[in-house]
Amino acid sequence: MNQHDETYDLLATHTREAAILSSIQELLEWDERTKMPPAGGQHRADQAAHVAGLVHQKQTDPMIGEWLSALADSPLAADPTSDTGAVIRHLQHDYNKKTKLPQTLVEQLTRTAVEGQQVWAAARKANNFAAFEPILEKMVGLKKQEAAALGFEATPYDPLLDDYEPGETTANITCVLADLRDALVPLVQAIAGSAKRPDVSILTRHYPASVQETFGKQAAAAIGFDFSAGRLDATDHPFCCMPGPNDVRLTTRYDEHWFSDCFFSVLHEAGHGIYDQGLPSDQFGLPTGEYVSLGIHESQSRMWENQVGRSRAFWEYFFPVAQKEFPQALSDVTCSNFYGAINDVEPSLIRVEADEVTYNLHILIRFELEKALLEDQLSVADLPGAWNKKYHEFLGVVSPTAADGVLQDVHWSAGLFGYFPTYTLGNLYAAQFFAQANEDLGDLNAQFRRGEFLTLREWLREKIHRHGKRYSAAELAERITGKPLSHEALIGQLSAKYGELYGL
Amino acid sequence: MNQHDETYDLLATHTREAAILSSIQELLEWDERTKMPPAGGQHRADQAAHVAGLVHQKQTDPMIGEWLSALADSPLAADPTSDTGAVIRHLQHDYNKKTKLPQTLVEQLTRTAVEGQQVWAAARKANNFAAFEPILEKMVGLKKQEAAALGFEATPYDPLLDDYEPGETTANITCVLADLRDALVPLVQAIAGSAKRPDVSILTRHYPASVQETFGKQAAAAIGFDFSAGRLDATDHPFCCMPGPNDVRLTTRYDEHWFSDCFFSVLHEAGHGIYDQGLPSDQFGLPTGEYVSLGIHESQSRMWENQVGRSRAFWEYFFPVAQKEFPQALSDVTCSNFYGAINDVEPSLIRVEADEVTYNLHILIRFELEKALLEDQLSVADLPGAWNKKYHEFLGVVSPTAADGVLQDVHWSAGLFGYFPTYTLGNLYAAQFFAQANEDLGDLNAQFRRGEFLTLREWLREKIHRHGKRYSAAELAERITGKPLSHEALIGQLSAKYGELYGL
Repeated sequence: MNQHDETYDLLATHTREAAILSSIQELLEWDERTKMPPAGGQHRADQAAHVAGLVHQKQTDPMIGEWLSALADSPLAADPTSDTGAVIRHLQHDYNKKTKLPQTLVEQLTRTAVEGQQVWAAARKANNFAAFEPILEKMVGLKKQEAAALGFEATPYDPLLDDYEPGETTANITCVLADLRDALVPLVQAIAGSAKRPDVSILTRHYPASVQETFGKQAAAAIGFDFSAGRLDATDHPFCCMPGPNDVRLTTRYDEHWFSDCFFSVLHEAGHGIYDQGLPSDQFGLPTGEYVSLGIHESQSRMWENQVGRSRAFWEYFFPVAQKEFPQALSDVTCSNFYGAINDVEPSLIRVEADEVTYNLHILIRFELEKALLEDQLSVADLPGAWNKKYHEFLGVVSPTAADGVLQDVHWSAGLFGYFPTYTLGNLYAAQFFAQANEDLGDLNAQFRRGEFLTLREWLREKIHRHGKRYSAAELAERITGKPLSHEALIGQLSAKYGELYGL
Repeated sequence: MNQHDETYDLLATHTREAAILSSIQELLEWDERTKMPPAGGQHRADQAAHVAGLVHQKQTDPMIGEWLSALADSPLAADPTSDTGAVIRHLQHDYNKKTKLPQTLVEQLTRTAVEGQQVWAAARKANNFAAFEPILEKMVGLKKQEAAALGFEATPYDPLLDDYEPGETTANITCVLADLRDALVPLVQAIAGSAKRPDVSILTRHYPASVQETFGKQAAAAIGFDFSAGRLDATDHPFCCMPGPNDVRLTTRYDEHWFSDCFFSVLHEAGHGIYDQGLPSDQFGLPTGEYVSLGIHESQSRMWENQVGRSRAFWEYFFPVAQKEFPQALSDVTCSNFYGAINDVEPSLIRVEADEVTYNLHILIRFELEKALLEDQLSVADLPGAWNKKYHEFLGVVSPTAADGVLQDVHWSAGLFGYFPTYTLGNLYAAQFFAQANEDLGDLNAQFRRGEFLTLREWLREKIHRHGKRYSAAELAERITGKPLSHEALIGQLSAKYGELYGL
């Protein structure tokens, strides 16, 4: 073995060890949110903090810098999309970011995020933005310091966005999201003005939790989630996690009088889970075994949830199954009425309850506001007014309370600036990939009607999952669809689907 | 803070950190045995090995030796039963043992234990002792080396026993266990000769798993297991573990046609769990927050399983509840017949299926044999013959196969010599403590008949649990009962109970 190979091995082993520790964090969190007895919380915090400390130590070990320096001009780094080249490039990128931040700033950010979430929760409960304002002000200031320390050319939003969408630029997504907004607002208005309204009350009938579980698992298995390498449990706020390769855990929650909550959570998390299960497990712990970006991860969950799970073809196969499982609730319902009900579009106040059309407007509002905060175009004091103004403009609704308005999300209190747009990037990528899959694979709807979903899953594995982080999101879009990220596919799909549903 | 206090703080913090890591091992194992999807095994092994390495590093850190030296003659160590004195004394004891073992021997023991268990499993499956003989020979040799490295005066069995029963001596338990044997053999013979036989077929009727779960939880809660700081799950081989203070997890398994398996597992594990929940959580990670010995831990599980859970009084309260929960199986059964069935005594071949009377003879056979192996009084080649001879002498049965004879237990293949007697020490301590509790608390049976079990639990907390490892098992017995460990209480209780049941 030559010197470069040896150095690379040391680097890779070190990186994998950090990943083993991170995967233990995943298990600690999964257990905390699904199984842990209530009194176990305090010790769990001690365990999580201890492992977080070990991970941090590993990730900031100065040896990483030395190994990377030694490898920078080696043949192993020459091709940035080779196994070794991709690993070296990403580790260098992450190490640079980590070491640019002064320790005191990292500590301040961590402390303020913990405190911020507590203050936010209390302020939201008290419906009092003024109580949250000072710590949000502090957090925005710290995020600007973070951006300055990381360095940027165009806008402080760039290095923050890069944490979640590596390689993406604010300039690019600003254009794409503005195009999306300009097309979405009239579409939402047209739907709101339509006389056709589905009967959503059928979704509030009695759906027994145990049957929801069986039915959800059946659907998740059908679309290709592998239960021999995963499981499904109940929790308060659904999530998907990966305590290890070949160990991917979905969660959902059960409301016996709201069908959609559990079922579409299961499909959504199963979409994340199928991606995790499709990552090359022999590359576990290295960038070549990791997901591309939050936007790409979300594209996988959204595609299975929306493009597949809210399609007419999907329900032409699954509705008879659902009728058998829920005879009391569904025996007098037609597939068409059910399809209409699960695709009800209604401008509303709360992001997490929004439908697939209006959802993106909730995101665009947050993106524009957080970008303005960081670029000093908006003060924290003016945030509530700006929030309400945009809700009125984009969605035609204004929250009577701060709790259901500007205080509804935890993200900013936790310092997550640059995170929101990834939700909508996920929707855009999902639409763009799905359009291409239809071109590549023929009529997917015909397959869905027969209960066949694995062709699409294999296509996603081949085109996206197996590459790990070898290509950026933008590169993937170009490679797979021949086009850059754009609003067109999503708007095309939404217009066609909702045009038919609402007779536009 | 003076120098000694500072040193003690460093030592305690370091020790607690090792315990946090150990508690993560507990969660990894609990998850593996109850929840992990089948494909997750390989990565779980990586996680477990990594954490085991970190724990080992912590536990053998030479700083511990330096801190302990600095504290040895300090006022903090002066009283061996004070908080600090007990901590220093136990840590010194453990550190001495750890550092006396050469690294190569530790590695050989670990490797041979892993290989040994694999070879044992295959040999057992093939019913072939000869296939297991060479590695068992090797293991016995290594255990002798271990004993020599640790040092001993009387017998190499002493330092090995000390791993599980700190402070106990082979000489002492040899006497006590011989007394027990001499009293048990005739009791078992008398029972076997009795014409009275319970109808155990009632326990093989249909007991739905979900109802077994509800009923088991109800009983565990009634005897004082706190489900806000614990839970119950299904597994293959029941165990109890503690991923943290206030987080104690019981497991059981469900056989729908064998009532006793699940129910008495739940009571047994709940007994362990009640002890774990009773340890002082503010002392977590330090000897003052740890259990005394395996024998004392087992005394807690056995007392709730046998002295309480197999008593007539317990079922006078719980049998009507059971009849309500299992109407199909139990509506035509009397409490008395049920009590007889769950207390069926029958000499048999398999230790883990044995009743509370014959169980101890299985243990005594193993204790005498493993002691003889280590003291060079028996060769591994002669083990099968010696095994069968003792089974014939003690229990009047001889296994036709090695698989159900000398190959039935995993312990020796894993290097666990000195472990077996702790099961019977548990039964002896349970009987001795229970007799004392009856003296201290009045007629416990009268309380059990009313479904009251918390008086006994509080007594155990006060007398045993809250002290952690402050006193040795022998010291506890003296403190609580005024007597040393003896066979008398157990033989007294068994003779009275089974005398009545079998009309002796």
